[in-house]
Parts: sequence; C-alpha cells; structure tokens
Amino acid sequence: MPTTSRRTRPGSGRGRAVLDLPLQLERTEGNRPLQVHAGLRAAILGGQLPAGLRLPSSRALAAQLGVARNAVVVAYEHLNGDGLVETRQGAGTYVAAHLAARLPAPPGAAPPPPDPVEVPGRGACALGHTEADPELLRRLAGAVRRRMLRAGAAELGYGDPRGSEALRRQVAAHLAASRGLRCEPGQVVIVGGTQHGLRLCAEALLRSGDAVWFEDPGYPTARRTLEAAGLRPVPVPVDGEGLDVAAGRRGALARAAYVTPSNQFPTGATMSMARRLALLDWARAAGAWVLEDDYDNEFRYDGPPLTALAGLDGGDRVIYLGTFSKTLFPGLRLAYLVLPPAAVGPVLAVRATHDRFPPGLTDAAVADLMADGTLAAHTRRMRRRYRAARDLLAAALAEAAGGRLRLVVPPQGLHLVAYLPDGAEPGAAAAIRASAGIEARLVSEMRLVPGGPDGFVLGFAGHAPAELAAAAAALGRAVRNPDQCRVPSSESGSRGALAV
Amino acid sequence: MPTTSRRTRPGSGRGRAVLDLPLQLERTEGNRPLQVHAGLRAAILGGQLPAGLRLPSSRALAAQLGVARNAVVVAYEHLNGDGLVETRQGAGTYVAAHLAARLPAPPGAAPPPPDPVEVPGRGACALGHTEADPELLRRLAGAVRRRMLRAGAAELGYGDPRGSEALRRQVAAHLAASRGLRCEPGQVVIVGGTQHGLRLCAEALLRSGDAVWFEDPGYPTARRTLEAAGLRPVPVPVDGEGLDVAAGRRGALARAAYVTPSNQFPTGATMSMARRLALLDWARAAGAWVLEDDYDNEFRYDGPPLTALAGLDGGDRVIYLGTFSKTLFPGLRLAYLVLPPAAVGPVLAVRATHDRFPPGLTDAAVADLMADGTLAAHTRRMRRRYRAARDLLAAALAEAAGGRLRLVVPPQGLHLVAYLPDGAEPGAAAAIRASAGIEARLVSEMRLVPGGPDGFVLGFAGHAPAELAAAAAALGRAVRNPDQCRVPSSESGSRGALAV
Repeated sequence: MPTTSRRTRPGSGRGRAVLDLPLQLERTEGNRPLQVHAGLRAAILGGQLPAGLRLPSSRALAAQLGVARNAVVVAYEHLNGDGLVETRQGAGTYVAAHLAARLPAPPGAAPPPPDPVEVPGRGACALGHTEADPELLRRLAGAVRRRMLRAGAAELGYGDPRGSEALRRQVAAHLAASRGLRCEPGQVVIVGGTQHGLRLCAEALLRSGDAVWFEDPGYPTARRTLEAAGLRPVPVPVDGEGLDVAAGRRGALARAAYVTPSNQFPTGATMSMARRLALLDWARAAGAWVLEDDYDNEFRYDGPPLTALAGLDGGDRVIYLGTFSKTLFPGLRLAYLVLPPAAVGPVLAVRATHDRFPPGLTDAAVADLMADGTLAAHTRRMRRRYRAARDLLAAALAEAAGGRLRLVVPPQGLHLVAYLPDGAEPGAAAAIRASAGIEARLVSEMRLVPGGPDGFVLGFAGHAPAELAAAAAALGRAVRNPDQCRVPSSESGSRGALAV
Repeated sequence: MPTTSRRTRPGSGRGRAVLDLPLQLERTEGNRPLQVHAGLRAAILGGQLPAGLRLPSSRALAAQLGVARNAVVVAYEHLNGDGLVETRQGAGTYVAAHLAARLPAPPGAAPPPPDPVEVPGRGACALGHTEADPELLRRLAGAVRRRMLRAGAAELGYGDPRGSEALRRQVAAHLAASRGLRCEPGQVVIVGGTQHGLRLCAEALLRSGDAVWFEDPGYPTARRTLEAAGLRPVPVPVDGEGLDVAAGRRGALARAAYVTPSNQFPTGATMSMARRLALLDWARAAGAWVLEDDYDNEFRYDGPPLTALAGLDGGDRVIYLGTFSKTLFPGLRLAYLVLPPAAVGPVLAVRATHDRFPPGLTDAAVADLMADGTLAAHTRRMRRRYRAARDLLAAALAEAAGGRLRLVVPPQGLHLVAYLPDGAEPGAAAAIRASAGIEARLVSEMRLVPGGPDGFVLGFAGHAPAELAAAAAALGRAVRNPDQCRVPSSESGSRGALAV
C-alpha cells in the first residue's frame, strides 16, 4: 500500500515527506491547480491513497511534482471542499477518514466490460441499407452548415415538440402531392425513427393490455416495440391482398391495427382497395387506431406511389408513419408521424416525458434539400439503382437456384422474398442461410403462428452488384445441395438428413 | 358538385366531355403522367370528383390539360391500380363506386388545427438558455461537415445502440479527468437529453409503482418523467447539505433516488460528503439505484467541478446523467448516461423498443470538438460570461429589491434563487412574477409538499446583460410594491390586500 515515505525519519520534518505514488497530471486539462487536484482525486478515489493517509506538505508535493507551491495549496483546498481530505489544524492534510468504509474498487480491478453489443449486420443481403451517395452527403453537409451558421436562440434552445416547422411543411406538401394524404404541418411530428413514433403512439393512445392486430408474418421489430409498450399483438393472417380484415374481425376485440399496406413486410403484398376500405370501416366502428407503417413508399418501380391509407381516411383513425431511413439513411434517425388532429395533444404529452423534442438543425437541413429538389432528384437516382439491384438479384437467384426457389419480386421496396419449395423441412431455411453465409432474415422468423412456407427475406439496396451476385450464387448452391434442402417425399423421408 | 359537363348533349359524344374542375398539376413534381395522376387523385380523395362520376376520355382530358394523351392514359392506369377508378369495358372510366361510403371530409372542411403547442419561453430570466456563440457554431458546422463527407456504411446504417464510440471515449476521458468518475466507454450511452436517459433507466431498472426518493423542492420535469414511467416519486426534504438521507430512510421503502448533488435544483445546495456517503450506503443496503443528474457541473465558478457521486461509488449503484445542453445547447438533444456494468444490458434492451440508437454524425462531430480542445475552450469562455451574468443579476437584484429578496448566489450553474421574505402571502410570488413580466419559475412550483419559503428561480445564462438588468429592475419594483408583496404582520394582516 502506498504511503508517504520518510515521514517518520528523524529530522526530516513533515514538510519534506513525498508520495511514493507517481501522480498522473493531465497537463493539457485546465490549469496547474486543477491538474494537481484531479491527480490526487483520482488516486484517492482509486484507493491508491487510502483513507486516513497523511498527505505531504504543499511545499514537498510541489517540489516532487515540479509545480508552484500555490498549485498544491489550492488543490488541497478544493479536495477539502469536496470532502475528500481533512485538514487538521497544525497537523497537516489527511485523506478523509470517512472514506474508509467506502473504499472503491481496489486498484487494478477495473469494472468488467459490459456485454458485447449487437449492432445490425452489414453482411450479404442484410436489410436496412441504402447507398452512401457522396453527392447527397456533400449537399446535406452544406445544408447543415448553412443552418448552423444561421442558428439563433430559437434553433438552439428548447424547441417545438413536433420538430422543425420547415421540415413539417415539406413533409405535408410531399405527402399531399405524392401519396394523396392531405394534412396540416401541425399534424406532423418529427421522431427519431419509426419505432420511436410507434412507441409514442402506443403510450399515448392505447392502454396496457390492449390487443393490436398484427400482420402474420410481420415486422418483428414493430412487434417488439408494441409488446414493450405493454400491448398485445394478435396475429391476423396476410394473403395476396394484405391483412385479412375479415379474419381479424372474427378474433378478439382489438384497439388498433399495425399494417404495412403499400408493401406488406415481408411478403410484398399490396393491400387491395376492398381490404383498405374494410379496415377503415372496422377502425371507425371499433374506435380503433390504424398504424400505417409506410416504410418504403418512395421506391415504387412500376408507377406512382400508392395512395396512403391515411389519405382515404379523412384524417380520422389512421396514424401514418413515414421515414427518411430509406430515402436518406437510418443513421440520421429521422422519421415522422402524421396524426389525426385528436391524437396530436396526447402524443406530445407523452413525448414531454421521453425525448421532449427532436434535434432541429439536421432536420431543417433535410427540409432545405426537399425544398430545392435535391431529395427528389436523389430519390429518383436511387430508385433506378435499387431497381437495377432488384433485377440483378432476382435474375442471379433464378439462375443459381435452378427452380428450387420461388421468387416474389416486388414492385416496390428494398427487399425481395425467395421461398423454399412447399413442404421443405422445418429448419431448412436456417441451415441453408448458415451454409450460404448470407445475412437474410427468414419468413419463419417473422411469423407469430408457425407454419406456412418459409423463405429468405433478401435486401438488395446498398449492396454492390458483385456482392449481390455472389450472395445469389451462394444461396443457389446451398439450396440445390440435397443435404441442405430436403423436401420430405416418398423417396426421401429422413428428417435426420438435414445438415445444420 | 362538379360533374363532367356536356356529357348528355346530343352529338357531343363521350370523347369530348371535360371536367368542370380545374385540376391542379404540380408541374415540377415527377413526370407528366405522375402529375395528372396526382391531380386526379387529390380531386377524388378530396371529394371534388365523387364516387361514380364518369371521367372524360383520355383524349378530351389531355386536350383540356394541354398534355399528351398518353399522360392521361397512364394516369388512368395508375388510378385503376390504386383502386380509385374503375374502367368499364367500352364505357369509360369512373370514380370507383366503393369510395361512396368512404367520402373523405367534404371539400373545404379542413381538419381543425391541432391545439397550440407549448414551446418553452425565451423571456426574461427563462431557464435553459445558453449563448449562441458564432465561433463554436462555425467549428461545429465544420466538424459535422468533415464527418459527413467521410461517412460510409458504418456511420450511415443502423448503429451501436450506445451511440458514437468516438463520443463515448471522449466522455469517459472527460469524466475521469474532471469529475473523478472512472468508467469504460462501454458504460456510456448517448441519449437525446436527460429525460430520455431517465426514461430508459426507469423502464429498464425499475417496476411500475416503485417508490423513488425525490428532492423536495426538485426538478418538475424529472418528476413528470418518472411518473410517466409508472414510478412514484416520494418527497424527501432538501436542506443546505442537499437531500436529507435520514428523512428518506424514515419513509417508505424506495427502489431509487433521483438527486442533483452538485447543485441541487432549484436550491443550489451542494450535497455534503457525509450525505453522499449515507446515500450510497442506503443504496447499497437497499439494492436501490441512485440517479445522479449532474446537469450543470461544467459551470463551477469557485474551483474545479465536484467529485461525482458516481465517482465515489465504485461503479455499482449510481447512474450518472450528464448533458451537453449547458456546454453546447439544448437543441442538439445530446446527453449521456454512465451506467454500472450490470445496467448496460437492460437499458439497451429497452432502447431497442424506443429510438433504437442515436444519430451518429453530429455526435461524432462533438467528439471531435472535445478531442481538439474546442469544447474545453468554449466552456472556459462561457464560464467567464455566465459568471459575469450571475454577478450582474445578483448585484442588480440586490439593489433593485431593497432588501426584500434573499438571494442565494450559487457557486455553480446557470440560475440563482431569490427568496421572498419569510411569511409572504401564498400566491405572492406568482403575482409578483406576473407584474414583473419575467419568465422565472417559482420555488413553490417545484415543491411536492407545499410550504416553506417561496421565491424566484432566475436563469442568467444566454440572456443579454441589458435584459438581465431590466428584469432585475422589474422584479425589484414588483417586490417593493406593497400591494404585490404583503407580509402578514401586526400592522398589515389583511389577506385580501394581495393583488393578482
């Protein structure tokens, strides 16, 4: 244990005792007294200078450290004010005795490193990627810079809980022009991602234990968000026309429905107009909310974006969730809600106890890129690229799989689904994925009720053509390997043949 | 109701019917077919083209709009795909009949504007302001720009739920050097403000109904956050040494304590070392969490920042909440948690169902400003300015109030408290505030248990010297007005004399 040395040597006097401990002075942080204070404090809190230890005189420590004596005097005063040392009149300065019972972790015993954190992967066919387009980044950086240089108290202080007015105006104009959704900027609330918006709505508009219709198969992240908010997602089957509203009506009473009507995730179904109207009728009759997650509507390849469900609703029961994670990138954390007027107040009241309001400068810069047409031009450019990526992946898969995969090539969005043949063994998809070394999600991972065909949900945006081709080849090889993809049949009934 | 005109005129033929409605074509959005589609869709959804209406032939509408016929043909196809029109073989195109039951809001009946949203004020002595320093903004803009231009898939995609590693490293180094808080970057979690962090901790580490010691008086925003998370703040009185731990122990069992030990909000008390150790002893024995909100520690005027409670704890029971809202500005939405290792996993699991992860580019830019010393230099500069503002406000108030206010001038932070004389009428402070036209908060507004002296919580940072002087003069006038600030006494006992 370190001590002050020579303190008992006859004739040496208290004044010349030194610390056996080499103090760490951060000579770039603050002034000299602050450096000495910080060094001593770290040593006390770290247990290197134990409770009750007498510290050297200010003169001796100053000499040892090569600093002015006054720096040590001031540092001792600060330590005293902080309660870490005690000055005994005429007897010197001691590490405070009351720290004895509170000795921190012994020297060297650093806290164990936290559990490794799971960050979404960037492997072959991983979902959620977009192009890091340098031109777009350059323009965004310029817009942020201009906004920052102009920023005053209004932009820097506590702001509107709905977020940047400039961005809300642009979003409202964009939705009216491209989605048939007419709304006031006051109904738009900027949030930090779709899940964030979903969470705020769940807490503001629903009660713990409420049932929520949930597409089956459906988006697992949204399911977890609803569950974490205390809600009870109930599976409603999906077919080629989207969510089966009649099946939902046969089930338990629900207070909301979470749907992806433009491009059902993951199946790619577009909800038919008949189903849309049936869903809205149900919502109106039940007093339920429809949570319309329109996650990739800007990437429709065969025509204009579909009319939003919220556009059919007259602004009553549908909450529209849009995002910039696909047109720009997820790292921006930029999404928005369009709320029926009656829902605005409750959602903002909840936000006041979460993040209060969103960061405004980047948001306003994005509004600038919408206003000057940069974002629309970028979206058109990316639409061409993503469409080409979709076609490349689909063609490569069709060739590589030799008919062993049924492809659903969507007219919209950034992913496609490749189904295994009907009757493939349970677990086959996971085995094939592992063998192919791709990061696809599985349809079976997105089901609430097990069963039905399994397959691979493959992202094609933000991946280089060569990567997509290689992934398709690997997946094709794995699928054609009879050990990997065994379909029970008269000639091959052994379940044990499945290699994992 | 608009109709197609001339459709019944003999000899005119269907082909030449035109819309009586002037279609709005957004000629800058998309190509011509998309413009025609969007215009028709808006008119259908807006009810101007009612269900069942026969639309003009493509030739006639093209002539009316002055566009190529093919643009209308394609637009009609898209409307058909969208379910908004029906094409009857040989009989033309009709607005879909099934829309009849679903007519949106009638034309002109826009949804009512949402409730006006309360944005925190910027009036005299309002809290929460900092200087909009142009030099700092210029450097921040430059750092953001550099980060954006360098950004790749890792920075733009779904990221680490703890936030920018660069920023977490800088925060950990800063806390070790300046607050005696040793932690790993893996224990730091970047959040969008202190309330956001508090909310995540409440949900991850506590249960609905749990009691939480809460300073009385204390920070109302934090109280609301805890309550919204289902917790039960229980008042524990505050005196000159901070939270009265012994009083807390006499009360009900609690699972956490929310404290502002460096600069108790609003009273300005510094928690004594004896109280700190008692609080930590309690937390350890009770298995409770201490939520240390260290909201303005960088602005200590008389010495180095105090040792963080979390620094005394050995990384066990204390959750440290720090923020950039004071060193930079609230509009950044940038704060951080330092979590005991055991709390990291649960908090991140909760975050996965909220905002998932924070925006990384601005955060990394702030890390750059920490690494190159810009932020430290800015903080020193602001410390001098805020100290001068504090001294100006205190001197002006002392002079203007003529002894009618008891000032508590803090050694730290961005606000001071001016108490009314003991025995002032209830309601006097609110009346004086209204009369003075200042935006001060009142101590009485921050009490959980009514009683005790009332006074004004006055922000001095981010306000111009002339504004502070004017506010002090106005407050002094109002306080010296005997109709405004009546103290019941032998010569004046009438409660009715209070003017509101």
